[in-house]
Parts: sequence; structure tokens; C-alpha cells
Amino acid sequence: MAIETSAKPQIPELLERASVPELDAILGRKFPVLDDGFVRVVDYMGTDAAIVQAARVSYGTGTKKTREDRGLIRYLLRHQHTTPFEMCDIKFHVRVPMDTWRQWVRHRTASVNEYSTRYSIAIDDKQQTPADAWRTQSSLNRQGSDGFLDTTVGEHLTTREREFQDLGWSIYQERIDAGVAREQARKDLPLSTYTEAYWKVNLHNLLHFLWLRMDTHAQLEIRDYATTIGEEIVARWCPIAWDAFKDYRFNSLQLTAAEIAIVQATMANGKDAGIAEAESRGFITRKDGVLKLNREAREIDTKLNALGIDLPWS
Amino acid sequence: MAIETSAKPQIPELLERASVPELDAILGRKFPVLDDGFVRVVDYMGTDAAIVQAARVSYGTGTKKTREDRGLIRYLLRHQHTTPFEMCDIKFHVRVPMDTWRQWVRHRTASVNEYSTRYSIAIDDKQQTPADAWRTQSSLNRQGSDGFLDTTVGEHLTTREREFQDLGWSIYQERIDAGVAREQARKDLPLSTYTEAYWKVNLHNLLHFLWLRMDTHAQLEIRDYATTIGEEIVARWCPIAWDAFKDYRFNSLQLTAAEIAIVQATMANGKDAGIAEAESRGFITRKDGVLKLNREAREIDTKLNALGIDLPWS
Amino acid sequence: MAIETSAKPQIPELLERASVPELDAILGRKFPVLDDGFVRVVDYMGTDAAIVQAARVSYGTGTKKTREDRGLIRYLLRHQHTTPFEMCDIKFHVRVPMDTWRQWVRHRTASVNEYSTRYSIAIDDKQQTPADAWRTQSSLNRQGSDGFLDTTVGEHLTTREREFQDLGWSIYQERIDAGVAREQARKDLPLSTYTEAYWKVNLHNLLHFLWLRMDTHAQLEIRDYATTIGEEIVARWCPIAWDAFKDYRFNSLQLTAAEIAIVQATMANGKDAGIAEAESRGFITRKDGVLKLNREAREIDTKLNALGIDLPWS
Amino acid sequence: MAIETSAKPQIPELLERASVPELDAILGRKFPVLDDGFVRVVDYMGTDAAIVQAARVSYGTGTKKTREDRGLIRYLLRHQHTTPFEMCDIKFHVRVPMDTWRQWVRHRTASVNEYSTRYSIAIDDKQQTPADAWRTQSSLNRQGSDGFLDTTVGEHLTTREREFQDLGWSIYQERIDAGVAREQARKDLPLSTYTEAYWKVNLHNLLHFLWLRMDTHAQLEIRDYATTIGEEIVARWCPIAWDAFKDYRFNSLQLTAAEIAIVQATMANGKDAGIAEAESRGFITRKDGVLKLNREAREIDTKLNALGIDLPWS
Repeated sequence: MAIETSAKPQIPELLERASVPELDAILGRKFPVLDDGFVRVVDYMGTDAAIVQAARVSYGTGTKKTREDRGLIRYLLRHQHTTPFEMCDIKFHVRVPMDTWRQWVRHRTASVNEYSTRYSIAIDDKQQTPADAWRTQSSLNRQGSDGFLDTTVGEHLTTREREFQDLGWSIYQERIDAGVAREQARKDLPLSTYTEAYWKVNLHNLLHFLWLRMDTHAQLEIRDYATTIGEEIVARWCPIAWDAFKDYRFNSLQLTAAEIAIVQATMANGKDAGIAEAESRGFITRKDGVLKLNREAREIDTKLNALGIDLPWS
Repeated sequence: MAIETSAKPQIPELLERASVPELDAILGRKFPVLDDGFVRVVDYMGTDAAIVQAARVSYGTGTKKTREDRGLIRYLLRHQHTTPFEMCDIKFHVRVPMDTWRQWVRHRTASVNEYSTRYSIAIDDKQQTPADAWRTQSSLNRQGSDGFLDTTVGEHLTTREREFQDLGWSIYQERIDAGVAREQARKDLPLSTYTEAYWKVNLHNLLHFLWLRMDTHAQLEIRDYATTIGEEIVARWCPIAWDAFKDYRFNSLQLTAAEIAIVQATMANGKDAGIAEAESRGFITRKDGVLKLNREAREIDTKLNALGIDLPWS
Repeated sequence: MAIETSAKPQIPELLERASVPELDAILGRKFPVLDDGFVRVVDYMGTDAAIVQAARVSYGTGTKKTREDRGLIRYLLRHQHTTPFEMCDIKFHVRVPMDTWRQWVRHRTASVNEYSTRYSIAIDDKQQTPADAWRTQSSLNRQGSDGFLDTTVGEHLTTREREFQDLGWSIYQERIDAGVAREQARKDLPLSTYTEAYWKVNLHNLLHFLWLRMDTHAQLEIRDYATTIGEEIVARWCPIAWDAFKDYRFNSLQLTAAEIAIVQATMANGKDAGIAEAESRGFITRKDGVLKLNREAREIDTKLNALGIDLPWS
Repeated sequence: MAIETSAKPQIPELLERASVPELDAILGRKFPVLDDGFVRVVDYMGTDAAIVQAARVSYGTGTKKTREDRGLIRYLLRHQHTTPFEMCDIKFHVRVPMDTWRQWVRHRTASVNEYSTRYSIAIDDKQQTPADAWRTQSSLNRQGSDGFLDTTVGEHLTTREREFQDLGWSIYQERIDAGVAREQARKDLPLSTYTEAYWKVNLHNLLHFLWLRMDTHAQLEIRDYATTIGEEIVARWCPIAWDAFKDYRFNSLQLTAAEIAIVQATMANGKDAGIAEAESRGFITRKDGVLKLNREAREIDTKLNALGIDLPWS
């Protein structure tokens, strides 16, 4: 990047507005999520080239060849130069169960307009769980689930859910018919009720959202939305940034200071040195000659496995 | 404010941390709101003096007498110098129905940690509406309510609500007992379910929140929370800023360009001139000699009444 | 606005991207500001219609006639329903003296990429003050200026400025030639040095910026930028929102609780009652029979004059 | 963390405000930075315990033993549960050269009140570079410096700087004496001029600031401020969070998807496999039998060296 900058680069007199034909082709199309939700793109601003353009203002230079643009975008994302990614914006229209929406709006760096059940009658649509989709509580992760309940139990739960949702809607209707204000009639709607919203976010904040919500620790429902947004939409919109995100963030692996030290010790002096390093940090304790791993040591296991590095304690 | 500034004001070597005895006296106390909600202060930073201190950094001067501090705070608030009000922070612990919480978190400039029904069993507590508290839909304001339903109807609605909430909780328990993951078991909880959260916000953003949510257009439930926060807490914490807020923002009145022109015309040339001005802007139309006011003209009515100015068209 | 909402409005299968021909026609055009600065639009998202669209999601309804759209936008802006205005974004390329840029970036709710003098040689361009443009310190407003210095003095100051800026640039060059790192060579550049940046902001935050920076209390230089953005660009981009902004915010007038009380008293019981009200609030004091007005009373003067209301104390 | 939660935990009636004696002991003390800058803590809210408290609201439980608190804070930071760190705030008074301040305020998630040279006479204090502190342009990093200029050259540059700064101040004084408004008189102040500000930020955003600005890629001047804030202040204020930050973020190492694949291939099938993997991704090219590394391959070098893993291509 040996760029010499003239103080006053030529500025073109007039510009054409940038667009992405691949995204234009699906503008407005509903991508279904869950049983009756969707995500659709309403509008957008900027492209991969806008990231480059913003970065090159910093560098005081004009546009380069596509190959160099790709390298630059990847460099920026790899090295936490995040501000140029703010120069792209996208606006979605989404239909989401309120339960999922509660998680969604925790991301504060976005613009939101939600369907108002104060102003209008609530949307008569509830997210329903099929008999084979009731997930069991994870025993390892207090915040997660794994596996599914037996469908015999599931059928019962699904029937009960349907009855409850129906009762909820009839109570809501009863209140409306009796003249109760909409703002109060809605107060017992179940969280499974669908809502709709416009949601506008810049690419930097969107990638952060996707990083957290496409993750396996995210709840399945919001993960479905995030994955749809990522793979169906961002991949079309800013394909270079999307690839960089996957390579440098989503599929990356972070080693902590302790993990670095344990790998170093193992590489330099063998497994016993690695174990000693882990013991000195309290990750491993011995009881009657048996090694006991704490939570952090188990996390190291997962990472070293991914790297194909033999665990010192295996 | 004829202050002459030396380039290097004396900086005291060490500081005492500022505190507000009136607020310390109620730290942790639960102020009840609704049937089972509350607001309590957990911690805070800054006082009226911190606003002054930040403003005087801008001005390059030290602390003045209390009387001048009061004048400065009022001047800052009156003239939209809002940044010094960001220097005070307050942290609340709140218990709120999820329906109200949905409105609350729309204010994005705050820090939030909410009770997690993914991690823990949901709070078994629902906001219940007594028979005499069912509000009727406002006919004037699509987003509001006015008056109350007859208690005979109310009693029926209250009974039905109780049954529905009880059923909801038994279904939730059933799911938990069957081993459904908490993150999924919660999906049909009614919006009346209480949640809890820590909510931290700076004084500038808090006053904005209170301005919108203490307003008569805000829904009664969140208005109760806002009023409690304002009158029980902010009034103790930063009494000078609180008074200024009431005088210069909450109880102020904004006249639009059109309203200014109508008042001017009326004052200068009498009522007919005021009507002519309003007609020229399309606020008033005549049909068969009868004046017809549009929505904006009716808003003018309210404001001029408040000022005691005779309406041109009355 | 008696809109009845069906729960599932028809959603068009595909959308055309919204655009504003009046803005497209000037995309990229440099609007000059100061002696060598400019503002140009690089891209945008949304139109007046996007504001309406976002609001109507809240209302659960589709698009209406233009006349109703205009009424809705004006209603939203008049009543502080600000979130739909966030749905429009605009991206500028600006050239600004660093002194002005320091004020500009105090507005934090925007995305910024600035020309990097760490990475590239600084822009060889300084904002220069002509002999007739040296402003005198305001005696009333410690933060302002009024009137101009005599050009004889001005010529001297202009010559001295030129010499200083030339020396600054030669010192900068000397450092670069000696091999000093750009990040350090720049450390004495005068604040008059031009910088360039991409600046992206949504319409809500832009209108707030314009409200503060087009104001007569804003410094002349940034006011020139703000006025150019408002009148040349926003007026083309979202003309309905722009008109509403001027009518309901920029040219509006806010009466404080005290001012309301004084006007009321005067209207109801005459000037003496107005004076008594002002005295009771400490705005007016009497000394030897002469009325003395404090700062706030003088502010009331200005407002009542604008309304054509006779001052109680005149 | 097998915590069973009762629905209604006991809430203490009244609270003592939390404080940190180690921080109280230095409240107001100036930590010097550069030749005449400083950082001092003015106020703060929250402690390590506040992070735990906010997290446990999410978990619906009360306070635990210190040892568990430490584990929880470390877990939160390691797993990107960042919101509890927002519950701590700190307010600094800083004196900084404007050149450094320009970088500092790019971090938008903080509250700022800066000394106003519109309202007051500028601070007569410039950051001066000693003869042995002129850094040379890095040849590897366009944005960096390495090594120092010969002091003979340095002495010349230092003398010239002093002359220029003196001239700048005399021109500024001349303008003030001639009656030029302060807002305009300041327009040519060199960027080396010191400014002062109050800067308030929450712990989450502060750690992000420190992560970027304590980094070796940050410019030396702001790195000195960041390091002082981190090691002198945050280490006293929230020592557990500070340790976690160093272990899990500041001294961590991120491996990209490509790097994981290269390590995996090397571990499983030897160096040739690692090289083949790197070639297939275009990181390595061969010319006449010689391996040529691109930028990303050189970055891999650094990381694998840190881990003590033999480079496939060494």
C-alpha cells in the first residue's frame, strides 16, 4: 500500500448512486423464519465499495482495483478498523414473536419502529411449537437447551399451548368488544404473539449482532433470524465483507493469555510442562493422582482440539 | 458572568467524593408502583454541583456560590446546553410488568441488565387489574384511554384475567416439570408477568425519558413509574436541575411558527386578522359561514387558552 | 385517522428502491462553504415516504395519499414522535477547517471517517481570514461575536496569519523531509488546516444538528456549513420533513412556566399583575422606583416582542 | 453455578453506597502524562461487586463469596457478556494536547465537557518535543513510527518548534488585544496546544478504549494516557475486571479461520501440509522454489511464534 497522496485529489463533479443488483433482485422478498415470521429488506445504502471509499478518505486516495479492495476490506476487518463498516446501512421489515423481539431490541445501536398494539388491534398470530420441537433443558449450560422431548409429551404440550393461546385471544377480543382501551387490553398477550417492525442498522453493528446471535449459544429462534439475515441477505449485499466476517470473526478462535502460556510450555517442554502451567493457574487440581479440570480448563480442551494440538492432560 | 480565567487554575491535590445526603437516606428503599412493582435507587454519581463543575470546565473556572450555581444550572437547561447533565448517573433496580418494560427499553441510551428467564425460573408475579381499573378506549386519541368501564363488566374481566394468568402459570410449571428448557418454557408467559432489571442512565437522558413518560400522552402504567422516579428520586438527588426541568421543559409550552404568526396578527390587528392568518394556512375553513377547525387549529386552542389569550375564532 | 387495521396487511412481493430525483440530480456536487471548504452528498437512504412508512408500521397500515402523508409527517415532528425520522440516512463528503471540525464531531450520533494525517501527508490548505472578516468579541455574549474590526487592523492580522500559516507549513515540510513520522510531524499544524471526512447521519440526528448549528448562537463557520446542508440538501431530499422542521422546531418559540404565568397574569389583570408575577419570581427588582430586569426577564422581552404582546414593564 | 432461584429474593430495606478505598485514596490526584498533561479521577460509580450484582439480577440471585465473584467476572468477560460492565462509571479530568484529543473523542460512547476557547482565553501551554524524542516514520507501517532521529537534527526541530509555538501565542495575544472574538482568535492555534476536559465513560466502553489505545499500534501519546488510566486507575478501581481484561482480551491472541486450518494441517500431517494449506489460500506463493509470504502470512508468523509452534515454512 505504498500510496502517495496529492493534497487535492480530483473529485468527480457528479456521482451515480451505488447499488447492488444481487440485493435489488430480492428487495421486498419475504424470507420465512419460524412458523410465520419473516425478514425482508426494504432499503439499503452502500456496498462493499462504500467501505473502501470511507477507508480511503482516511488514506486520502481514490478507488483502486477490485482485488486491492478485497484485500483492504479484509485488512480492515482483521485489524479492528471498524468505522468504515458503519458507512453501509440496511433496513429490514421483520415479523418476530415478542419473546424473540425482547432479545433483539437489547441491541441498542439500531433504529426501530414497531407495530403499535396501543394504536392498532394486535396481530392475531402466535408462534406455535410442534409436538416434536419441545427442547429439553441443557444440563451443562443453564442458559441453553439440548435434544428434544419425547413427542408423546410434546403432543400434550402442543395441545395445551394451542388451548392457552386461543383462550388468550378470546380474552383479548372480549376486552376490545367491551370497550377496553387497546393499550390495556393487550396486557396479557402471550410472548408468543407475533409483532412486526422496521429495523435499520449499519453493517458494523449488524455484524456484531450476527456474531452474537448466529452463535451456538444464542437461542434457537433468534439464531434462525440471524442466520437468515447473514446467509441470505448480507452475503448478497456485501459479499467481501461477509467472507471476511466469517474468516476473521465468526470462525476465528481466541486464545487467552493462559492458553497461550500452556501451549507455549507444551510446545517447548512437553506435556508435563503444559500440565504444570495449567496447575499453577489453578485450572487443574490433583486429587489422589487424578487430574480435575475446572470450567476454564474444559474450555481449553475445546480450543486445542479445534487446532489439532494434543492436550497436555489427555 | 464576567469571569477572567487564568490559564492554569489551581487544582486541589485530593478530592472527597461528592454525595447527596437526601438520596443516601433512601438508597435501597423500594418505592411501590402498580400492584407489585417498585423502583429503588442502587447507586448514583454526581450531584447538582457536578453539572456546574462540568460546565465550568468549559468556562475554565472554579466553583462559585450556590446562588450562582443555581442560576447556571437553570441557564444551561433553558438554553439546551445539555452535555453537563450527562455528568450525573443513577442506577435503579426496578420491578415492572413486561408490557411496560417493552416501552421502557425503547429508550436506548441507558444500560440494562434484566432478570433472565432463560437462566432462571420466571418470576411468579403478574400485574392484575382490579375491577374498577379497566380503562375505556379514548375516542379522540387512538393511542389513549379515558374513563373506566363499569365495575360489573370490570369484575368479569378481572375474574377472566385471573383465570388466564393462573392457567398460564400452570402451563409454564407443567413445561418446566416435563423438562422443557427454560428458554422455551417461557414462550407463552403473558405480558403482565413482572420482570426485574438494573437500569442505569445519565441525568440528561433520564430527564428526556421523564419528559416523554410523565406526559399525559404516556400510558398510565409507565407514567406511574416515571412520576415516581421524578418526584421521589430526582427531586431529592438534583433538586436544582429538577426544578429547572419542570419550569423550562415539562411545564413549558412551544408555539409553532404558525402559532406565532396568528398571535402576532391578532395582537396587532384584532381577531379578524388572526382568523385570516389561520385561514391562509389552511387551519380554518369556512362552510356556510361556519368556521371549521382542523387538528392543528384545535391544538392552538389549547395553547392560547393556557396563555389566557382570547382565541381569534371564539 | 380512523384507520381500521386488518391483522395481516398485504405485503408486496418485491419492492423498487426508493429514490429522490431532486437529490440524485446533485449527487456528488460540491456546495462551497468558507474559502475552500465544501459539502457534497455521496449517498442516501430513504425519502419523506420512508418516514411515513415507518410510522405506519407502528400504525399497522399501508401507504396513503400524499396529502395525508404530509399531515402525518408534520404531526410526527410536532409531537416528538422522532423515531420514524431515523429511518432516513445521508452520507456527506465534507472539507472543513479542523477548528470547525472540533465542534462538528461533538455530535456523537453519526458515523465518521476522517482523512488521516497519520497515514498521509496533511492537506496543504488553510482557512484564511480576509481583512474585512475579523469579528469583534461580543460584549453581551461571552461566547459570541458581533461586528467587524476596522480593515486597517484587519489587514495587519491577515498578513500575520498568512506568515504564520506559511511558516507552519514549512516547518511541517522540514519535519517530513527530515524523516519525522507523519503522526508526529503534524503536531503543530494550526487549527485552520483543512481536513476532509465522510460523515453519515440519520435525518433525526441531522435535524437536531441543524437546529443547534443553524442557530444564531452557533459560530459563524459551522453555521455556514449547517445552513448549506439544510437549505441546499435537506430541502431537496425530504422537503416535507424540512418544512415541518422549520415550522415546528427551528422557527418555534418556547415559553417557560414562568413566562406562561406572566402572560396569563397580564392578559387577565393587566400590566401591573404581569409585573407583580415577574417580581414574585425574582426576575424584576425595584431600586428607587426603577425596574431592574435580570437575564431571564430580558429573554422574556425578546419572546413577547416576537409575539407582539405588550411587555408588562414597557 | 447450580443456583436455585426463589421467585422473590429478599431485598434489603436500605443500602450503603459502594466505594473503593483504594480509589478514594487517589481521588483528585494528578497522574502526569507527557510534558504537561495529566489524568485525575473526579468521581466514580460501582466496583467489581457492581458487575456481579448486575449479572446476578440476570440470574435472579443474591451476592456470593468473593471467590465466586472473581470467577463470575472472569467468565463474563471471557464470554462477551459485556452489559454488566456498563454498570460501572468513572469520570476523569484530563489535560491533553489537542492533537491527541482529536483521536480521543473519536470514541463516541462517553460524555464530554471540554474547556471552551470560545468562552475563555486559550490555555497557554503547548506540548513540546525534546530533541531526543523526534520519531522516524516507520517503513513497515504507514501509520506508525519507529526509532528516533539523531539529536542534532532533533535539536534543530525542537528550536524551530519553540519559535513557531511562541509566534503562534503572540499572534493569538495580538488578536485578543485587538478585540478579535475569542472564537475566531483561536483559529490558528497549533494542535500541540493543551486543552482540558471532563470525560465520563462506563467500564465496558473504557476497556474497549484501552484495548485499542494501549495497543502498540496506537500513537505513543494517546498510548501514554491509556496506559496511565489502565495501570494506575482501573487496576485500583476494579482489580478483578482489570486482571480479566488483561488475561482475556489485552494479552489474548485471535486465530483466524485460515490460521486454524494451517495449524491443524501442520499438526496432523506435518509442515508440508501446513504450507500446502497456506498456498491454497494464496498466503504463500513460490517463485523459483522460493516461498514468498503475503501480509497475512507474515501476521501468522508472529502469532505462531508467540505460541511456540514451529512455522511450517521456517
